[in-house]
Amino acid sequence: MNDPAEADSRYMAHAIALGRRGLGRVWPNPAVGCVIVKDGHVVGRGWTRPGGRPHAETEALAQAGSAARGATAYVSLEPCAHHGKTPPCAEALVSAGVARVVSAMTDPDPRVAGGGHAILRGAGIDVVTGVLEADARCANEGFLKRVTRGRPFVTLKLASSFDGRIATATGESQWITGPAARRMVHGMRACHDAVLVGAGTARADDPSLTVRGLGVAHQPVRIVASRRLDIPTDSRLFNEIDAAPVWLCHGQDAKEARKAPWAAQGARLVSVPVHQGRQLEPEAMLAELGKAGLTRVFCEGGGSLAGSLLNAGLVDELVTFTAGLGLGAEGLPGLGAMGIDALAQAPRFRLDRLRAVGPDVMAVWRPERG
Amino acid sequence: MNDPAEADSRYMAHAIALGRRGLGRVWPNPAVGCVIVKDGHVVGRGWTRPGGRPHAETEALAQAGSAARGATAYVSLEPCAHHGKTPPCAEALVSAGVARVVSAMTDPDPRVAGGGHAILRGAGIDVVTGVLEADARCANEGFLKRVTRGRPFVTLKLASSFDGRIATATGESQWITGPAARRMVHGMRACHDAVLVGAGTARADDPSLTVRGLGVAHQPVRIVASRRLDIPTDSRLFNEIDAAPVWLCHGQDAKEARKAPWAAQGARLVSVPVHQGRQLEPEAMLAELGKAGLTRVFCEGGGSLAGSLLNAGLVDELVTFTAGLGLGAEGLPGLGAMGIDALAQAPRFRLDRLRAVGPDVMAVWRPERG
Repeated sequence: MNDPAEADSRYMAHAIALGRRGLGRVWPNPAVGCVIVKDGHVVGRGWTRPGGRPHAETEALAQAGSAARGATAYVSLEPCAHHGKTPPCAEALVSAGVARVVSAMTDPDPRVAGGGHAILRGAGIDVVTGVLEADARCANEGFLKRVTRGRPFVTLKLASSFDGRIATATGESQWITGPAARRMVHGMRACHDAVLVGAGTARADDPSLTVRGLGVAHQPVRIVASRRLDIPTDSRLFNEIDAAPVWLCHGQDAKEARKAPWAAQGARLVSVPVHQGRQLEPEAMLAELGKAGLTRVFCEGGGSLAGSLLNAGLVDELVTFTAGLGLGAEGLPGLGAMGIDALAQAPRFRLDRLRAVGPDVMAVWRPERG
Repeated sequence: MNDPAEADSRYMAHAIALGRRGLGRVWPNPAVGCVIVKDGHVVGRGWTRPGGRPHAETEALAQAGSAARGATAYVSLEPCAHHGKTPPCAEALVSAGVARVVSAMTDPDPRVAGGGHAILRGAGIDVVTGVLEADARCANEGFLKRVTRGRPFVTLKLASSFDGRIATATGESQWITGPAARRMVHGMRACHDAVLVGAGTARADDPSLTVRGLGVAHQPVRIVASRRLDIPTDSRLFNEIDAAPVWLCHGQDAKEARKAPWAAQGARLVSVPVHQGRQLEPEAMLAELGKAGLTRVFCEGGGSLAGSLLNAGLVDELVTFTAGLGLGAEGLPGLGAMGIDALAQAPRFRLDRLRAVGPDVMAVWRPERG
């Protein structure tokens, strides 16, 4: 408590944790957290609210009221400097009279990019930056990916038998992993902006792709990648479209007759270039999703889409669930054809986390390069 | 130290640990450990020596000398009661004048089966049985499997990409897992009586199947299952046959011309019935290996042999090593065709142990039933 640097780290960790609450529901905005501390007491806490407004600082300042005067504000991302739907947070912090701002990192958004810190310093506020920056980057990697690379952060989930199969030859897939792993997958859906599957999975499983069983009201966008839009209109995604938004990534050559019923039903149609005349170009598809504001996409297969995302180096986090059963070579593979002849061509990941989840093994992997 | 039951457990745990030193090198005998304790001091320790002789009790009694008189002997398996190459250990314990024998379990071998304990009790020795029995069973499950089921305990190792592939489409497989996992595999080979692979693996990889890099002199038997004995004679197994015994499990219909060079080279030929006119009958093959005295077999694939052992319910322990790379559907599958249509038919395993080994994940699984 007496070491100021240690106290800064502690309050910043709290701000970052608060910010994480917004993951999956604040896009296209970053999920920021803010803690206001005066005389060793937390007088205000805030995090970006669903939809991206109000910002974390606004919430925390409102809670602090007049106690903000002379206080220290901890923010997990540089306060915004631009006039959008609301006045910039940097100005709000100045108006509230805070004496010191501790920020985890500069916001790479070109409308901010150091401008927020400059406003604060210009007003005579003591500004410290880079506190727990690595943690803050990790919490906001979806937003950062979209701002710096123009595409959302992609998590790929693979749930398979120990021999890498996601269904029997006859297509039976319920259930390979146990209830604990499936529940965890619903939690992962909830903290992503969108859930993405390929057309084959949409046809085979008729999934609803909603978050269920967790008491979570917020639903991510549901996206199907289907070059020809050959997804049945007697599907759950079509008939239960009110449950959550449905977006369809289709080839530029998809037929109007396929698009029309989905458009009429309220789905959003996203046109994507076709790769070598065969499949949707994965980089282009993700660029479109980034333009649409998505920062975090959770891909649940199937094998063809997963293989093409991996081959294109577009998987930022891989989550594997492995069940204790063997299905044999006739089973449906979790990864489709990838055209890999030599081991050196294979996408490589390093192990980040490992644990048992019910009867299954969960491993989280990060790309070896990137 | 003052609780006699706790002291018994502690010395028995020591005896079981000593016994484990013999795993892989005492077949067809059990790997037994013995500790002799007098007045709270260990006066003798022994374990079954390579080849199965001398027995643990003989070693421990020799070490204890006259101190054995009035002592307590802890043995991880009932002392033998039959005259084989040496007099029975039960009689040796009586002659040495031990006052008390603590035994983990009755030896199910019909030549013993309680007879050892009876000899001790008949001589007025205080006999306690069943101490740490579960641990002792676990340490000797290879021997127990052979005596009670007529076949060796089978460990199956699968080392694959996260999508279950063991090589690229072009057959490149070196290396998918890292050096730490490969080193661990050599350690696993060393504590099994034999290493077993299918003919496809023998042809594709030209493996030596020896234990290397661990400073271990003992080598397990190397077994190839090949219905037609179509294994090249310009292979390491053929030309380096002096490195360790080579056994070949072949179909009853294998041609003499195939058998002759291997027999001349010194390999042991094991004839096995053919299943449905296609492959070696896995139960019959293991029964032959059990008759030959093997208690612990380490199977390293390939996919066809692994699939048939799993399908037949013959895998007693499954060890999966999973590397952080994806190879795609053209890659060689770790499990071959298994003819499974419904998930309910799939062999199921429960997770026993889980850890990271270098950059890879190691999981140890046990059959859900059996």
